[in-house]
Amino acid sequence: MRHLNSMDSDFSADFSALLQGRSNDERSVAEPVRAILSDVKERGDVAVCEYTERFDRLALTPEALRIDAETIKAEAARVPAELMDALKVAARRIEAFHEAQKPTDLDFTDSENVRLGMRWTALDAVGLYVPGGKAAYPSSVLMNALPARVAGVKRLAMCVPTPDGVLNPLVLAAAQLCGVEEIYRIGGAQAVGAMAYGTQSIAPVDRIVGPGNAFVAEAKRQVFGQVGIDSIAGPSEVVVVADGQNDPRLAAVDLLAQAEHDEQAQAILITTDAVFGDAVIAAVAKELETLPRAAIASRSWDDHGAVIVVRDLDEAAELVNRLAPEHLEVLLDEPRGFSAQVRHAGAIFLGRYCPEAVGDYVGGPNHVLPTSRTARFASGLSVFDFIKRTTMIETNADGLGRIGPAGVALAHAEGLDAHALSLSLRLK
Amino acid sequence: MRHLNSMDSDFSADFSALLQGRSNDERSVAEPVRAILSDVKERGDVAVCEYTERFDRLALTPEALRIDAETIKAEAARVPAELMDALKVAARRIEAFHEAQKPTDLDFTDSENVRLGMRWTALDAVGLYVPGGKAAYPSSVLMNALPARVAGVKRLAMCVPTPDGVLNPLVLAAAQLCGVEEIYRIGGAQAVGAMAYGTQSIAPVDRIVGPGNAFVAEAKRQVFGQVGIDSIAGPSEVVVVADGQNDPRLAAVDLLAQAEHDEQAQAILITTDAVFGDAVIAAVAKELETLPRAAIASRSWDDHGAVIVVRDLDEAAELVNRLAPEHLEVLLDEPRGFSAQVRHAGAIFLGRYCPEAVGDYVGGPNHVLPTSRTARFASGLSVFDFIKRTTMIETNADGLGRIGPAGVALAHAEGLDAHALSLSLRLK
Repeated sequence: MRHLNSMDSDFSADFSALLQGRSNDERSVAEPVRAILSDVKERGDVAVCEYTERFDRLALTPEALRIDAETIKAEAARVPAELMDALKVAARRIEAFHEAQKPTDLDFTDSENVRLGMRWTALDAVGLYVPGGKAAYPSSVLMNALPARVAGVKRLAMCVPTPDGVLNPLVLAAAQLCGVEEIYRIGGAQAVGAMAYGTQSIAPVDRIVGPGNAFVAEAKRQVFGQVGIDSIAGPSEVVVVADGQNDPRLAAVDLLAQAEHDEQAQAILITTDAVFGDAVIAAVAKELETLPRAAIASRSWDDHGAVIVVRDLDEAAELVNRLAPEHLEVLLDEPRGFSAQVRHAGAIFLGRYCPEAVGDYVGGPNHVLPTSRTARFASGLSVFDFIKRTTMIETNADGLGRIGPAGVALAHAEGLDAHALSLSLRLK
Repeated sequence: MRHLNSMDSDFSADFSALLQGRSNDERSVAEPVRAILSDVKERGDVAVCEYTERFDRLALTPEALRIDAETIKAEAARVPAELMDALKVAARRIEAFHEAQKPTDLDFTDSENVRLGMRWTALDAVGLYVPGGKAAYPSSVLMNALPARVAGVKRLAMCVPTPDGVLNPLVLAAAQLCGVEEIYRIGGAQAVGAMAYGTQSIAPVDRIVGPGNAFVAEAKRQVFGQVGIDSIAGPSEVVVVADGQNDPRLAAVDLLAQAEHDEQAQAILITTDAVFGDAVIAAVAKELETLPRAAIASRSWDDHGAVIVVRDLDEAAELVNRLAPEHLEVLLDEPRGFSAQVRHAGAIFLGRYCPEAVGDYVGGPNHVLPTSRTARFASGLSVFDFIKRTTMIETNADGLGRIGPAGVALAHAEGLDAHALSLSLRLK
């Protein structure tokens, strides 16, 4: 854990080091992933089955790639009713927020008699990647599937690896809740390849979303262009901005809620109160004594955690913008004034009663967010990931007469004479 | 040129072949691009200068990478006034349409006392890639730079290669018109690397947009994640849907306006009238006798062009959706009914007086559009490329009391106890 103070003379260098701290290089798997993808593209189902046997220790035939409806139903039925109720609360709120996100079309005729428009339409088919094993979160199923549903995507296919054949009832229950019925028990680059190119038994999709390991991330990068993809998810992070008027234990637990995700996660406290900062450091150490995932969380905190003491909140906002964090908690009485100064953050959690975990489950906005400083240019998952725009131009002889001549001049200047002719022949 | 009829028995296979016809494989340059990028990342300006000397035959020092203000002014002044006026018409209309595109923020408190929001903010810094040589189009400068300006991007840096040191006055005039003052005379993968990683004299950007050759496209793919990128542009295409009530020459010229771009471009006519289809084929041949870029256009038309005769407009719409064309012209009296059936297209041009060239220059909507069937999932360039979303959640003890317990249950189910604790400690 780094302990920085903005008044120290070496602060600038230390903060820059913090910004560059975590490397996230998937390049080492580029070649094996390329080989898997081209094999799946060429041999389809057979290749997918072979890789599944090799990586997931699961012998499959093409007919068994898809998890049948009865199995899904039976597995989902094993989830306790109380948990199903919690999933339903989350689903209802996620749906409502994403409904509110839906944009409106444009259609207007301007003063030059040109009718212009922009229309949003849903993608036809989307593939959801759901990681297997310890990172198989039912909440992620909701966060990926529901925005697609709200957007109006007709076909949702899901891939979830089942190492050693072990199914995850929670994931299947979440899929069922979202109306996802086309689920394949495959993962890794082979699943990404199957969804991108299609196989004999898996129809290709138009876009692939969802988090995964280095193989999955690199495979998504390589199929980009063939299909759309969401952001390449890197290690996750939180920045907690707090004054001295907070319970140090709450801030500590909020930091650890990020750190417990994985060893590469990053939790940073920025505070105007040095004494509070010390108290949080002590509270983190105390919580780690009892936290079940202490091994992971303490590794993350030791390697990537930071406490930064600043002069004032303006300085805190400046550092937040340089960090461009995935998650930002603002533990202040008046969080709005502070958040108005933030230009780059995936999601902001305002006030002392809104820990980031609210957003992971039941807040409503998406928990799939831009990591590793990509909030400088990227956004969280949303309905916008599942719709696209078509622009429309309509005009008549009058409108073309007004704007066409400028087009003819530009087409000639660019040496594109058929362009010019297509306009001039219509200008009488 | 393929001549298909939907009533032929082998139509389905022939149409599928048309869909797969053009390959667009940039993989062959992946390794040299990787080497250039890592060299630029490591050695900065020096590497950029070396590659520029090698590929553009232009000896540069780091100080000369940027084109100075006086040179820009002097070059731009060489553009005839009439052409400047045409650029201004285009710029005014592009700005107006992209202004209309700007989305609104969300901010509402729901029935569970949770205040939710979504805020759009502009990127800080954007890099525009402008190709050199024959594909250096001033209209593309407007189409890339103006949406960024309208979005509120503060820093716009442009890279344009100048092989043998030859500057393009039109490109510099267009940049000046858009208020772009930071212009570097570099191109290729080295320019993409310089913008993504930064060098001693070029500050890094947050997103890189603009078309380029195979090296540029592959470089953008490889820096994706470090910075945002726009779509990887492939060969361009148009689909013209026409009944028999059109002048065959107009349809032919519209097809050739696509074909003259490059040999890989694709122009397809879909018509309900077989006789009209034959007349267009004859008209294309006639126009090619006099078209200045006939060598390119005839190669495109011969290799990738198609005339498809269909039973009716419903069938035409179905084929359009499978083609998901970059550009769609609807040469009908009632183009709205037809276009309502189209789910996948980058841009639609409606009516007999609206050739696609309107959209290339003076229509207002962007001419940077999803190519090669990517309109299935991608959209044209827009203000949305230069802004990103931050979601916001604020609640208090009451709101957390209503939604928090479901979050606690889910956190426990996912084995994330610090998440659960961050909620439960605040629930009294």
